[in-house]
Amino acid sequence: MASDKAGRESDVVHCRNVRQSGLRITEPAEVDKEYMASVFANCTQTWLESIKYHLGYQLDFNFDYAALNTLQPFPLNNFGDPFTKSNYGVNSKQFEVGVLDWFAHLWEIENDEYWGYVTSGGTEANLQGILMGFAQLHYQVNIGTTFKGAIDDLDLVIQTLAECGFSRNQFYIHCDGALFGIMLPFVEQAPQITFKKPIDSASVSGHKLLGCPMPCGVLITRIEHVNALSKDIEYIASRDVTITCSRSGHAPILLWYILSKKGRIGLQKDIQKCLQNAKYLRDRLRNAGVSVMLNELSNIVVFERPPDEEFIKRWQLSCQGNIGHIVVMVNVSKQKLDAFLDELTEKLSTWSKEGAHRCVAFDIGYENCVCLLHSPRRGYCFCFFYRISFDNNNRGRDNGDNRGHVLYNNWRGWLWSRGGSYSNNNASTESQPSNRSVPA
Amino acid sequence: MASDKAGRESDVVHCRNVRQSGLRITEPAEVDKEYMASVFANCTQTWLESIKYHLGYQLDFNFDYAALNTLQPFPLNNFGDPFTKSNYGVNSKQFEVGVLDWFAHLWEIENDEYWGYVTSGGTEANLQGILMGFAQLHYQVNIGTTFKGAIDDLDLVIQTLAECGFSRNQFYIHCDGALFGIMLPFVEQAPQITFKKPIDSASVSGHKLLGCPMPCGVLITRIEHVNALSKDIEYIASRDVTITCSRSGHAPILLWYILSKKGRIGLQKDIQKCLQNAKYLRDRLRNAGVSVMLNELSNIVVFERPPDEEFIKRWQLSCQGNIGHIVVMVNVSKQKLDAFLDELTEKLSTWSKEGAHRCVAFDIGYENCVCLLHSPRRGYCFCFFYRISFDNNNRGRDNGDNRGHVLYNNWRGWLWSRGGSYSNNNASTESQPSNRSVPA
Repeated sequence: MASDKAGRESDVVHCRNVRQSGLRITEPAEVDKEYMASVFANCTQTWLESIKYHLGYQLDFNFDYAALNTLQPFPLNNFGDPFTKSNYGVNSKQFEVGVLDWFAHLWEIENDEYWGYVTSGGTEANLQGILMGFAQLHYQVNIGTTFKGAIDDLDLVIQTLAECGFSRNQFYIHCDGALFGIMLPFVEQAPQITFKKPIDSASVSGHKLLGCPMPCGVLITRIEHVNALSKDIEYIASRDVTITCSRSGHAPILLWYILSKKGRIGLQKDIQKCLQNAKYLRDRLRNAGVSVMLNELSNIVVFERPPDEEFIKRWQLSCQGNIGHIVVMVNVSKQKLDAFLDELTEKLSTWSKEGAHRCVAFDIGYENCVCLLHSPRRGYCFCFFYRISFDNNNRGRDNGDNRGHVLYNNWRGWLWSRGGSYSNNNASTESQPSNRSVPA
Repeated sequence: MASDKAGRESDVVHCRNVRQSGLRITEPAEVDKEYMASVFANCTQTWLESIKYHLGYQLDFNFDYAALNTLQPFPLNNFGDPFTKSNYGVNSKQFEVGVLDWFAHLWEIENDEYWGYVTSGGTEANLQGILMGFAQLHYQVNIGTTFKGAIDDLDLVIQTLAECGFSRNQFYIHCDGALFGIMLPFVEQAPQITFKKPIDSASVSGHKLLGCPMPCGVLITRIEHVNALSKDIEYIASRDVTITCSRSGHAPILLWYILSKKGRIGLQKDIQKCLQNAKYLRDRLRNAGVSVMLNELSNIVVFERPPDEEFIKRWQLSCQGNIGHIVVMVNVSKQKLDAFLDELTEKLSTWSKEGAHRCVAFDIGYENCVCLLHSPRRGYCFCFFYRISFDNNNRGRDNGDNRGHVLYNNWRGWLWSRGGSYSNNNASTESQPSNRSVPA
């Protein structure tokens, strides 16, 4: 049985086994058209209901794809290199090149100086980036971490590499811009992914801010890197250096369609709306007395994990340890946020009866934490070590290092074991008293 | 400039650059609905035309997906483990588990003894297989090679491992069944992928014989392998060991739909039709005097490369060196094959005026080659070395070793340089006289 860091039996929270609810495939003689139609209708209903309350993931809805319905049956496959025609005619490489050119322009690299392709998602784009730079010192810069939306300082990375004596051809920088790669260019004074700086590749997810209904990604790299890797694979009459070889021809069309329909102006409006609504959510959470953080230039509002798994599931919040987040996407309107906040506020009074706020100082900074230790009434006597570790990221906070956290949990255990005023038994329905001893 | 093994400048054949024909993305203000509709209509026309003549790739058409049109706009994402519910409600894991159970049954492993998922294609399935078995001696068995449709002898592999003293827990066998993984179970007396034998994982492509309109694959592995790899990724409230994490939720629905609509009886009919039509094509090609090979249990007809690149492009034949192939899929009817054969027969007289058949003895065996050296009139005096290398595969031929070929090309060059009756200038419009010397 899997258990998370806090010792909770995590199959209470997740590991809800799908095995039992799998939709068995039957022979055509056993089913009629009505059954099939009812299966799809039920699912559609469930998904629509899910979308109503969806807040936790970097995905977008609200887009009409009816114009593309006639394309669905075509087995579109963009084998290999997007820039090289394959003998297989049923492909959408013309759309793919259009999409790539658009991103090349966005990230400031000339059409004849870049190579790239539409991937199956952010992971493949990142893997391809790693593959491209395998012979050099490889550095991956996070342009928006998944959970807290922190942005690595690209300029600092470049400066440090230079100070350490690395010349340009000795390092390879990949910018992982899964969500923010498309946001930052539309935000004034934001740090930018630009090939005018000595970066080597950049990627973005197509199913996050752009809202493509199937996972996909875009990778752009300097053309010289692909030449080092390329080899002729005559079978598909195409030069192939992609990881997957067979690639969806539908994804590029969907991206092309979304970008064409929204345009740069539409995207900018979308992004401004997301950032404004994120600030609105942060302020309302703060006013409600909840520990909350919103990184600069981010649409990801991070706050203390609600101590109610049903509430988390209902709003499809994505949680990690003591914190949860809401990704304020285009479809997350103020009305939706209000509905969420109203429900949360109502629940807060119940939860607060059960105990104080859990401490999230390590996760989002003592200045954002309203637990008993960190609220202004209690001062900062127990949290001197947070001050040390927290200011090493100038564009946001996403400290993956758990050592401080463990240390703090040990303090909590110590307090609890002495019957102190702080209890770690207050926040989660399935949390257990900690067995951890006082730190040595 | 890339060149293939025969020394042809390969950008004559492929490397037809798509850069110039990319569909530029414009701002919404610049385009109207009619333009967008005309782009899609033009593409549809091109694809329909392509499909008419399509013969070379392992893809299938002919299926009605209209029932799924309403599902297209949903951002279906099957994050992580298919058997574990995620907090993200808009997924199709119920369909995915249905598909996996179906394949588990096909490959004879109990539902509670396997793990697997629907991948982005055959490559990801194979990579995941490699990842699963990384700590052991890893052996990948080809159940149908891409180009010639040869099948590795699984029993021989198992026997050899045993004879070499490997115990069961020291090796990991992955069966790559991209095309044939779904075919063989429906062919009597064919060797089978079965977990009753000591194999560890198996995979199949969903966009080949099953005809899914987007690339996808299925991986099935023994459950103990996933436990070794698994770790809790709480972010998506799901145990994740998949390579890509974000996975299409549309692909499992398409597979579920296709399998449900066709059923095992429908699939068996499809497969029998493919195998029969493949034999029909082989026989007609042989009667027309073309070098041709069809491996046992295969629907891939391999024959000498037509010496006309326009013809190859028109029929979207996939070619490799001296040979090309036709994958006789469900949509490749006798009528389509007849149209192809009629055109080929007509062209043959023109081509034969330009020179004799090229030698493909190394590629498909001297017994299938009708070149001047290997036709019955000329005997087998020059090809003793083929006999040595060709019989090490009891279920078909797919020899990737080119040493024999180079040796033979040297003999051809030697004959040519002595003004012998054999010319290597006969087969391809862009072939050049060989400069190769007599072998040492």
